[in-house]
Amino acid sequence: MHSWIQRLSALAWQQLGEYLHETQLLGSIQSTLYWDQNTRMPSAGAAWRGEQLSLLAKQLHARQSCSHFEGLLGDARAEFEQARLVGELEQSQVVERCRNLELLEQDLTRQQRLDPDLVGALATAKAKGYELWQQARARDDFPTFAPALKNLIALRQEQTQQLAEPRSCWETLAQPFEPDLTLTRLQELFTPLRQRLPDLVAKVRGCSGARPGQLGWDLNESTQQGLCDRLLQEWGRDLSITCVARSPHPFSITLGPKDFRLTTRVVPEQPLSCFLATAHEWGHSLYEQGLPSQSHQWFAWPLGQATSMAVHESQSLFWENRIARSRAFCERWWPHFVSAGAPLGSADQLWRAMNPLTPGLNRVEADELSYGLHILIRTDLEIALLEEGLPVEDLPEQWNQRYRDLLGVTPENDGEGCLQDVHWSEGLFGYFPSYLLGHLISAQLSETMQQAIGALEENVARGDVPQLLAWLREQVHPIGRMVNAEQLVEQVTGKSLSSQPFLDYLDDKLEGLRGL
Amino acid sequence: MHSWIQRLSALAWQQLGEYLHETQLLGSIQSTLYWDQNTRMPSAGAAWRGEQLSLLAKQLHARQSCSHFEGLLGDARAEFEQARLVGELEQSQVVERCRNLELLEQDLTRQQRLDPDLVGALATAKAKGYELWQQARARDDFPTFAPALKNLIALRQEQTQQLAEPRSCWETLAQPFEPDLTLTRLQELFTPLRQRLPDLVAKVRGCSGARPGQLGWDLNESTQQGLCDRLLQEWGRDLSITCVARSPHPFSITLGPKDFRLTTRVVPEQPLSCFLATAHEWGHSLYEQGLPSQSHQWFAWPLGQATSMAVHESQSLFWENRIARSRAFCERWWPHFVSAGAPLGSADQLWRAMNPLTPGLNRVEADELSYGLHILIRTDLEIALLEEGLPVEDLPEQWNQRYRDLLGVTPENDGEGCLQDVHWSEGLFGYFPSYLLGHLISAQLSETMQQAIGALEENVARGDVPQLLAWLREQVHPIGRMVNAEQLVEQVTGKSLSSQPFLDYLDDKLEGLRGL
Repeated sequence: MHSWIQRLSALAWQQLGEYLHETQLLGSIQSTLYWDQNTRMPSAGAAWRGEQLSLLAKQLHARQSCSHFEGLLGDARAEFEQARLVGELEQSQVVERCRNLELLEQDLTRQQRLDPDLVGALATAKAKGYELWQQARARDDFPTFAPALKNLIALRQEQTQQLAEPRSCWETLAQPFEPDLTLTRLQELFTPLRQRLPDLVAKVRGCSGARPGQLGWDLNESTQQGLCDRLLQEWGRDLSITCVARSPHPFSITLGPKDFRLTTRVVPEQPLSCFLATAHEWGHSLYEQGLPSQSHQWFAWPLGQATSMAVHESQSLFWENRIARSRAFCERWWPHFVSAGAPLGSADQLWRAMNPLTPGLNRVEADELSYGLHILIRTDLEIALLEEGLPVEDLPEQWNQRYRDLLGVTPENDGEGCLQDVHWSEGLFGYFPSYLLGHLISAQLSETMQQAIGALEENVARGDVPQLLAWLREQVHPIGRMVNAEQLVEQVTGKSLSSQPFLDYLDDKLEGLRGL
Repeated sequence: MHSWIQRLSALAWQQLGEYLHETQLLGSIQSTLYWDQNTRMPSAGAAWRGEQLSLLAKQLHARQSCSHFEGLLGDARAEFEQARLVGELEQSQVVERCRNLELLEQDLTRQQRLDPDLVGALATAKAKGYELWQQARARDDFPTFAPALKNLIALRQEQTQQLAEPRSCWETLAQPFEPDLTLTRLQELFTPLRQRLPDLVAKVRGCSGARPGQLGWDLNESTQQGLCDRLLQEWGRDLSITCVARSPHPFSITLGPKDFRLTTRVVPEQPLSCFLATAHEWGHSLYEQGLPSQSHQWFAWPLGQATSMAVHESQSLFWENRIARSRAFCERWWPHFVSAGAPLGSADQLWRAMNPLTPGLNRVEADELSYGLHILIRTDLEIALLEEGLPVEDLPEQWNQRYRDLLGVTPENDGEGCLQDVHWSEGLFGYFPSYLLGHLISAQLSETMQQAIGALEENVARGDVPQLLAWLREQVHPIGRMVNAEQLVEQVTGKSLSSQPFLDYLDDKLEGLRGL
């Protein structure tokens, strides 16, 4: 009797797993098309690609919202409750299955509330938005992109109305990136940054290094490629599961359980840009490679996924800022840069070049100090666009105004202003704050890591990348979606998330750089 | 009344068109995955990619064989017959719709006869076969690949049994590549080649140029890339609709109505290989770019597609052999090669290097004279494997034996022997003869072209690529699948396909080269 129940009690679970597996196959096909679109597709292919993506989005939405899936999920829930009741499952299984079901049920509810037509329209609008954004950016011409942005905003507003969650429009859109985040909590975390960052920026003004675009030297593409290859080799790249390409905006994406892709770009006169972008995207990739999907059966299940974009970003920022921009790393790598032809007289010169600490116009190229200000501006603007009726036409002016006020710099055109980032072109609103939250999380996790394995600088000086990676692979990566970002921080560090460790870290770094 | 009929009479046709459009979207997604698999995917991604392709293959098969599609097709047929009866359609519309319906009905019958499980199994076996072939090839180890090949043969045999056409196993498998081809007709066309080619090969033995791998000079990758870029620019490349990448085996593929991809490869010590492969694949791409899908609504319809692989190959061979390997072309391009660093004292030296006329082991690198022998060997062997019970284990020995007998060369290992081509690794049997038929068609079409626009060499000497392309764009490319390959040749040249123009062309070329 018992074995009969056990067989039966695995059946619904297994059927659900097979269904999720196929959904994941389709989702990863979508990701492959996206990868190709950004790395290889000729420009005139965009319209057809948009239709392909729209078709897949419709299929995915149907799979994720249909009554068949609802039935499978209901059966798995019933089977699980029954198995739990009769004590058939171990405690860890109960916890894991419970969380998987909870997340699946939440996602199902969201999907079911969305009109399939809206899902299709969004996919088309994203492809169109991306195409027009590329054109607008090439010509520094915001009006080319404005109608697409208006359309995306209207569709996203419609989406939040259909979702009807007890959250504001912006909060609802932020959920997929930062589950459970509220605007109140966000402002609580960001307020100390609003207060302190402008002071810090003012403090270094005039006494910091050159702007990233003014280093006065450059490296050719293949030399930069060589340094990046060396970096990834030192940082544990497995060639059989990874691929590196170029795209206008660097990104990292997972296309299969053993297929991790990242892109970088070479920026003229910014010889460290490609290197740091590689370090950054590799951090994202390492997190994906360390998710529990890799160690057991969760690849198609919620628990196999990243818990939030902020946690994702904390991982990329760890490798970019805490490691590659550290003094110890520059000590080790200075000879490689000199061999590559960089006119750097000392390791400290490399360290300074890695940490320009001068407010610029570009988020991706920004230093750690002013980075937060870039995000505060974007966050305020997208809340204004979505919730406060800011007309799209006013965006360039508002953008430029805030850059003048907060960073003391003014874009000369929309290309280096409000057209610089890809996110809005694909209707991604509520995403930017994750970048800054990532800085906070990275700083707080690093504090704990140092307590466990000793000062980061000493590990880096020894070249002990395996020890750093091992700690993350043990403490952070396997958590998946078991808890949300703030819970993860609390679980790993024993404290609530706060902006203090990040501000402390900035103070330290500033002091070091001023001492040069 | 009449306008009501007309509206109604477009409805079924339009619905069928929308259905085909979506099928084409899915098909092109499959092609995109294939493209990525061959140009970018890390090796360990193969298993998941296989699952993705298998899922899409199942979906496509379902769409192409389901009763819903059958109903749409039946309605469109009925609507068409009615419209034809009342004289509503112009004669050209009648002819086109009739052919579209006929081909769709033929394809539907074939799809319906296939078991969906077999379709899925084939997709998986192809992905697995490709993976193992890559491993086997890297290690020159046929036994690594043998089990996968056995499996593919068994599945293909099962496929032809399910299709139950009044054709032999091999003939049935050849239909998708060469519609209406019979073994009898194939032997009729190939017999003169079997008789004449070994004589011609013997005739030049000893007095021809160096083997492709023994030119004694090389060009670095970026220089070769530069020459290829220049070639495509001169041959009318539109950057907004094309993309060039690298893959182990060069190929050309269409991913959307305005998205044409091709790959090439750099072979060490064969400085002309990449250049000639580019010319070849560009010929394929030009055919695709000129299909009627581009000029009107047929992209998702049979008439928008290439009629056969032999016709496809005739187009690639035209640009590779008739143009790039011609004496006039070498006269024009010799200075570019010299600028690129090639140690060539005269245009004739380039011409000789382009036309080594020495039997080698590799089909892709083969000269025009021995190329046919490579195909005859493969054709005989795959007929033996599929229809005559040749054990897979005996393939390397049989392969090597035939190379010794026909070409007088012996592979040192399976990598340069029976593992050199990708086709069988994906279960493509019945494909190879198209290459040789392509030579015949190319030669016969070229004869007619010369009658129309004057000697090819003179056009090439003037650099008049637009005139050559215009003739093909007018006479050949727009035919699509309106007729099969042999009918196309008859329609364009006024004669039945024959091996004579190809043999005449070889005689001419040989004489020219011997006169150097």
